[in-house]
Amino acid sequence: MNTFGRILTLTTFGESHGTAIGGVLDGFPAGILIDEEFVREQMRRRRPGQSVVTTARNEADEVQFLSGIFEGRSTGTPIAFVIQNTNNRSADYGNLREAYRPSHADYVYDNKYGVRDYRGGGRSSARETAVRVCAGALAMLALRSYGITVTAYTSQVGDIALDKDYKAYNLAAAEENIVRCPDASAAERMQKLILDVKRQGDTVGGVVTCVIKGAPVGLGEPLYDKLSARLAQAMLSINAAKGFEYGNGFAAAAGRGSQQNDIFCNKNGCITTLTNNSGGIQGGISNGEDIYFRVAFKPVATILMEQPTVNCSGEPTVIAARGRHDPCVVPRAVPIVEAMAALVILDFLRIEKGNMNVRR
Amino acid sequence: MNTFGRILTLTTFGESHGTAIGGVLDGFPAGILIDEEFVREQMRRRRPGQSVVTTARNEADEVQFLSGIFEGRSTGTPIAFVIQNTNNRSADYGNLREAYRPSHADYVYDNKYGVRDYRGGGRSSARETAVRVCAGALAMLALRSYGITVTAYTSQVGDIALDKDYKAYNLAAAEENIVRCPDASAAERMQKLILDVKRQGDTVGGVVTCVIKGAPVGLGEPLYDKLSARLAQAMLSINAAKGFEYGNGFAAAAGRGSQQNDIFCNKNGCITTLTNNSGGIQGGISNGEDIYFRVAFKPVATILMEQPTVNCSGEPTVIAARGRHDPCVVPRAVPIVEAMAALVILDFLRIEKGNMNVRR
Amino acid sequence: MNTFGRILTLTTFGESHGTAIGGVLDGFPAGILIDEEFVREQMRRRRPGQSVVTTARNEADEVQFLSGIFEGRSTGTPIAFVIQNTNNRSADYGNLREAYRPSHADYVYDNKYGVRDYRGGGRSSARETAVRVCAGALAMLALRSYGITVTAYTSQVGDIALDKDYKAYNLAAAEENIVRCPDASAAERMQKLILDVKRQGDTVGGVVTCVIKGAPVGLGEPLYDKLSARLAQAMLSINAAKGFEYGNGFAAAAGRGSQQNDIFCNKNGCITTLTNNSGGIQGGISNGEDIYFRVAFKPVATILMEQPTVNCSGEPTVIAARGRHDPCVVPRAVPIVEAMAALVILDFLRIEKGNMNVRR
Amino acid sequence: MNTFGRILTLTTFGESHGTAIGGVLDGFPAGILIDEEFVREQMRRRRPGQSVVTTARNEADEVQFLSGIFEGRSTGTPIAFVIQNTNNRSADYGNLREAYRPSHADYVYDNKYGVRDYRGGGRSSARETAVRVCAGALAMLALRSYGITVTAYTSQVGDIALDKDYKAYNLAAAEENIVRCPDASAAERMQKLILDVKRQGDTVGGVVTCVIKGAPVGLGEPLYDKLSARLAQAMLSINAAKGFEYGNGFAAAAGRGSQQNDIFCNKNGCITTLTNNSGGIQGGISNGEDIYFRVAFKPVATILMEQPTVNCSGEPTVIAARGRHDPCVVPRAVPIVEAMAALVILDFLRIEKGNMNVRR
Repeated sequence: MNTFGRILTLTTFGESHGTAIGGVLDGFPAGILIDEEFVREQMRRRRPGQSVVTTARNEADEVQFLSGIFEGRSTGTPIAFVIQNTNNRSADYGNLREAYRPSHADYVYDNKYGVRDYRGGGRSSARETAVRVCAGALAMLALRSYGITVTAYTSQVGDIALDKDYKAYNLAAAEENIVRCPDASAAERMQKLILDVKRQGDTVGGVVTCVIKGAPVGLGEPLYDKLSARLAQAMLSINAAKGFEYGNGFAAAAGRGSQQNDIFCNKNGCITTLTNNSGGIQGGISNGEDIYFRVAFKPVATILMEQPTVNCSGEPTVIAARGRHDPCVVPRAVPIVEAMAALVILDFLRIEKGNMNVRR
Repeated sequence: MNTFGRILTLTTFGESHGTAIGGVLDGFPAGILIDEEFVREQMRRRRPGQSVVTTARNEADEVQFLSGIFEGRSTGTPIAFVIQNTNNRSADYGNLREAYRPSHADYVYDNKYGVRDYRGGGRSSARETAVRVCAGALAMLALRSYGITVTAYTSQVGDIALDKDYKAYNLAAAEENIVRCPDASAAERMQKLILDVKRQGDTVGGVVTCVIKGAPVGLGEPLYDKLSARLAQAMLSINAAKGFEYGNGFAAAAGRGSQQNDIFCNKNGCITTLTNNSGGIQGGISNGEDIYFRVAFKPVATILMEQPTVNCSGEPTVIAARGRHDPCVVPRAVPIVEAMAALVILDFLRIEKGNMNVRR
Repeated sequence: MNTFGRILTLTTFGESHGTAIGGVLDGFPAGILIDEEFVREQMRRRRPGQSVVTTARNEADEVQFLSGIFEGRSTGTPIAFVIQNTNNRSADYGNLREAYRPSHADYVYDNKYGVRDYRGGGRSSARETAVRVCAGALAMLALRSYGITVTAYTSQVGDIALDKDYKAYNLAAAEENIVRCPDASAAERMQKLILDVKRQGDTVGGVVTCVIKGAPVGLGEPLYDKLSARLAQAMLSINAAKGFEYGNGFAAAAGRGSQQNDIFCNKNGCITTLTNNSGGIQGGISNGEDIYFRVAFKPVATILMEQPTVNCSGEPTVIAARGRHDPCVVPRAVPIVEAMAALVILDFLRIEKGNMNVRR
Repeated sequence: MNTFGRILTLTTFGESHGTAIGGVLDGFPAGILIDEEFVREQMRRRRPGQSVVTTARNEADEVQFLSGIFEGRSTGTPIAFVIQNTNNRSADYGNLREAYRPSHADYVYDNKYGVRDYRGGGRSSARETAVRVCAGALAMLALRSYGITVTAYTSQVGDIALDKDYKAYNLAAAEENIVRCPDASAAERMQKLILDVKRQGDTVGGVVTCVIKGAPVGLGEPLYDKLSARLAQAMLSINAAKGFEYGNGFAAAAGRGSQQNDIFCNKNGCITTLTNNSGGIQGGISNGEDIYFRVAFKPVATILMEQPTVNCSGEPTVIAARGRHDPCVVPRAVPIVEAMAALVILDFLRIEKGNMNVRR
């Protein structure tokens, strides 16, 4: 379904080449100052055409708010917003009307729904993520006053991977290059790789790492709405995402309990842990340490090379994308990952604020 | 919250050392023959004390059905079941009443709820997974008649990892050894590793791989209830799970689109793909190929060695588990992963059966 | 929250004098021909300014679809639509910025949210019901092919009440008069009463009766999503609704079981009931008979007379609506009741279609 | 479905003559002292066999808590409880295995599920309401510390109806007679009527009125989770309920806005209303006044007289209940109505406590 969240809910709509895409953010706290410039800034970070490592296609991605804001503040009623599709002119789709692009959603949509908007992938297009970024920006505005920040960065492109964890980097530096990697030297190599791949008409995958600082103890509702479980759902709902791990993740599988357990200690009257292999989540609940996780993205399925496939009648055919494509989705996925994380955290914060627990 | 699923919902309850644990499975199809022996068999696969690589603690884990079954068949009303805790005698918990075990949920539960059942981890204990296995067994019974099977196995323990993918193995062979690894030679090495680790009073992590065969095209509800997203949530809700990946997962990050795209072809009138890097899921919807994914588990946090920590007053203390513990959770996690997968698939199957789409 | 339904969900947004109102209908079957003229016709039936018994305020209420429809058919993806507010020019709201209108939502919104869009009632305005009517029209289009119809009419205005039940009338006749009452003589008296009340600057309440024909046996999900329970929620969510009863409703309280039980009989091989005091719902599930229920509406709270009240500082003040108002909401409530009923029925139909029950 | 509520959720299970009935209350605040004697007292108020106006069937209805309580306090984890069915001996059900009892759920269950536990109505039996009363009692314990009370009483039996509203009575007096009517003289007449009806083997309906005092402003989440809408759903989910109205309800339909509007005034610095026709709910949100509503119950469908009907093959047959039955459900419905109201209020209180609204 197209609604995400439990108390803070985001409902989204729209196809790649339809009239507009948009969303309805419900359950948003009232009285929050809506800093539209901040929203625009987040939109710019996801926007196509922002640099040489992204698609050249240009969309203004201007957000128009329709409701839920009055005199500059949220009113507690649903915040609806739309983003017009400026790039939706009737085009010659060639055999894309009928051919199933490899590793795209064309085939499953046709099969499941019996009808499909074939223009640019329709609903399955990553264009929808613009809506997530807008909603996430609003969530970040609410989280700000609680001192909670959400920061993501590119930690791998192809086989070029950062070898240190997030604490080794100045995360703000990620925004200083178009790849969004906080290590300038790695960023340069990543950029070169993406451009090489682009020249070949090919695409390459990567990994986004995300860090949430300032989250209080207590976020997450066991057993099935664990913070880790809901973050995993949120991340795997993003186009091209193939994996999720938090804390030391898959590396934990190779280790021993005696090495990986995070020892509790008392630091100036506050309980904290000496290490943070848990990634800030224990028993599915935030423990006050930094929350961090990684999301793997596959190479974009649209490539400029010719590929064999079949059409909706099962007949063999050949397709090749033309013109513009994203050689690597990762730099633009950074703000999307942040947005989904912010929505999860704000939702859980609302639930936790209302827990009514009587502390003895 | 303690309810999982959308139309098929599992609600669970119970603490490790309380009176009983149990669950309510709602939305289960009516008229399904309930093969209680099959349920018992699944329970045995998860049961503690089943082999030398699991904890020696012995629990009968006998399931008592309270409702929803009449004359051997499900009635469409909620199926409730309880599993008595036979091991809940009043014990001497020593400083566990107050000390926070490293990398356990003690601290976060105390902080979030202000009160905590400290006996054996209370609600956060992995004992709860027995309930999942029972519900999952019921789901498998319903899936059977649709020709859908769910099979998991141990693919990694510590640094011993299978180097081939699931198609290289006879998955049924996994049940022939106590590690549940389909490669007999690897299984032997894994078993040896676990026993070594056990002797040291330590624990080791691992990975479970799961394969779903026979699922039709169309399972999964974009955009936020993608099949991949809901499987990720399900898996990350399991105790000690640290990561999830489907298809080629994190490895996809290093690859190129031209190598990883799954080419469609026509095989005897059926549309299929030449490769299956997508893991049977495209655009969040099953595409008729095998669905497969991997789940990483950390080493169990309970170790027999002494560990420093703090108590609920923030004072330093030392703890050491006594007696029995699970040196590696992975062999027992295999049926748990299967159970959660079966619940997700049956839930989506119900939704898809009711889609009312008009096919042109 | 602003989302209604379980599998078929309607999420709505918008304030009376904001930019636009609108909705997102998710879970709608794919492949349904979208008859836009039918949607427009339903919108006209709810539109302000349609007759002398409704407010003179004029809104075009033109629906613009943004997504979910391709080449004239639904695609199974969310159908989003907006209705621009043409009447939202900056106006002089006098003391309405601060005064709390009696029996309106001004006070509770201010208190709950701490901020309020005071223009025309903001989110609490009945203007939102235009969105329901649009979504309901789409639901009716899907129900059509299953032979299910939803028809409502005015059965009471003030103290003028129809004294026969729905079977005594030709329900189509209701659309022949502006009151929407199928009894022409009663309609005339109702119209006269409304105009009298209007001249006095006052308002009057009434009752809408709704009949659903053609619904199959099996709609409704006990125990808490009984068809009766969900219809009740749907109806009580409409502005100014004060009561709901189905079948013989409150009158049942005065009767005896021996008189009210609906005797089953076999009519040409079909099981049916001799009477239908149950209103087509038994045990919360539709039984194949006509479903019928009644919804009570209070007189509109906005009157042209002066009323004392307090402002947001608690100081006494006086208010009087100016210009245009609805003397009786009931004629315009008829399509709203139908719309909400259609949404409930289609939602349950989807769930029932996917029940996967094995019939012996 | 068998789960009710949004953050505070009650999931129930069990058939009339199965092993046990029970429930899981999730989202309950931690740290609440569980006064088991209070729970038992509420159970006694609903128990069959409590007086000459209820069924003579005797069930102990002893609640056993299985989880979620530790050292006398709630822990924030799910509170599960079971009530054994002591009256579930194998009996001779005669033609009830196949005959459809008039105005019962037998027919619709058989048709919907294709299989049915025919013993005592199975899942559709009012026996399930014992579970609601237990959960409601827990909710009342949590509401107590917020000064919120929920009190219901019998306001009508057959044609004997109280002619004053709740403020005219000492509601505590309702518990002094077995009919649960606060007017002693009316109670006597009601009792006589019920006994007359009982002697005839017949049944009679009635109305329960419920009053909630002490609820703060702000409960209810527009637009579809209005407090009125959710109360309506809750009440219509109770067996035999046929109607719901709040405030002046259906009577509002006959009135004028000028008479019915509740004028705001300032009483010692507090904003209040002169009248309370709104029943404490405006715009779907509690306004701080008493919340009150009425629920209509039909006469119990089980009567001792012979009734014609059909069996599952559509053949005519005759049935007659034997032995014990409830001549009037209303006295026992009083605690059920209270229980459902308490669950709704506590759920909304949790949501409202977490609203995070920034008040200017």
